[in-house]
Amino acid sequence: MKNVQLLLEYDGTEYCGWQVQTNGLSIQQVLMEAWERQTGETIRITGSGRTDGGVHAYGQVANFFTQSTIPTKNIPFALNTQLPKDIRVLDAQEREETFHSRFSAKSKIYEYRILNNTHGSGLRRNRVWHIQTPLDVEAMIKGKSYFTGTHNFTGFSSAKSTSVDKVRTLYSLELERQNDEIVFWVHGNGFLYNMVRIMVGTLAEVGLGKRPPEEIEWLLKAGDRTKSGITAPPQGLYLKKVIY
Amino acid sequence: MKNVQLLLEYDGTEYCGWQVQTNGLSIQQVLMEAWERQTGETIRITGSGRTDGGVHAYGQVANFFTQSTIPTKNIPFALNTQLPKDIRVLDAQEREETFHSRFSAKSKIYEYRILNNTHGSGLRRNRVWHIQTPLDVEAMIKGKSYFTGTHNFTGFSSAKSTSVDKVRTLYSLELERQNDEIVFWVHGNGFLYNMVRIMVGTLAEVGLGKRPPEEIEWLLKAGDRTKSGITAPPQGLYLKKVIY
Repeated sequence: MKNVQLLLEYDGTEYCGWQVQTNGLSIQQVLMEAWERQTGETIRITGSGRTDGGVHAYGQVANFFTQSTIPTKNIPFALNTQLPKDIRVLDAQEREETFHSRFSAKSKIYEYRILNNTHGSGLRRNRVWHIQTPLDVEAMIKGKSYFTGTHNFTGFSSAKSTSVDKVRTLYSLELERQNDEIVFWVHGNGFLYNMVRIMVGTLAEVGLGKRPPEEIEWLLKAGDRTKSGITAPPQGLYLKKVIY
Repeated sequence: MKNVQLLLEYDGTEYCGWQVQTNGLSIQQVLMEAWERQTGETIRITGSGRTDGGVHAYGQVANFFTQSTIPTKNIPFALNTQLPKDIRVLDAQEREETFHSRFSAKSKIYEYRILNNTHGSGLRRNRVWHIQTPLDVEAMIKGKSYFTGTHNFTGFSSAKSTSVDKVRTLYSLELERQNDEIVFWVHGNGFLYNMVRIMVGTLAEVGLGKRPPEEIEWLLKAGDRTKSGITAPPQGLYLKKVIY
């Protein structure tokens, strides 16, 4: 048995998310079926974390145990021939037996893209959150500064979150305007369910002038999901990198 | 009657191209139907030129005559509510009666994107031409220099081209590596059928070492389509700008 780590890129538009579900096609299921078609072997693939339906990944990491004799360096080719074009295996590495794509992860970087223009974009429709009203980026930059550091993120996680410990550390949250987009990069040691999307949704409300930037500090302390902003839509979110 | 000029962005993936055809859904038809649903008025929309199935546009221009009293500045909103999300009207302007989106065009800029990596891209699958073998960009830059200026482009147009005069002037052809992509921008006073795609396909063969860069000069003089390179696939091509 060898433990194989995969680096994956996918367009989440057509999927119900990473995790196998009864109500839709998941990335995880498509990968396991692709491997079975290629090798005849049934495996279980573990991801570094779930991504929701519509969420994308430049750098999702997953691992699985296999008895296959396919050389590890050929695994991306073997899988890609069986996968739909919106999922690509970019790399495969053999790892130690104890490596676990989720539990071994030290930190993760997510990207979020808001398109802030009048009429949206035909080419980027499934890749960004379109907000028509001009956003005050300076206010958003002020607001985002409260998020970095170690906090209890209860107020910024879905009520559906099953994590007992809601304390997470954000190492950085960068935010910049790139032409007609506002791009976020969030680096943290872990993320609660919907955490990035609620942070972005709340910062967007700051950018719309609906909340003062300073309210973020209070919302973190309040720890009440109903007080924070909306959950930004999935199509603007990208799992960029998992760090081990 | 007013003459309305539209600026359009679209993702060509789901369409048979710009022009109304019997064998598929065209951008032109979708626009005309959207207008009719919104206003009840049947119109004919003229584009600056055809784009083939799968070809995208950041800046297609079209015009139509209307008796509608909708203020011109509201036309993008009126059309966008009726259009699928992969086609967006970015702007509308009232123009003089003699303005014709095709015949009034002075020049056009196309963009072409090659993705030159090992395993492709899930997110960019319909937006680039994926070439696995590393390309020699220096050779391609040498080869592309022969294209600029005024030439008879018979050797670089589809046999299906119906233009009688095959002489066109290329003002510039820029080509640069951007991370894992090789991006072309071609600015010319007009383009024959498949001209950009055959130019890119031939330059890709130069980049693969199948042809010396100097052969471009000979191919232009030879004027024989069968001697030039392959037609690069449509999904890497973008109509970027039409200049009036």
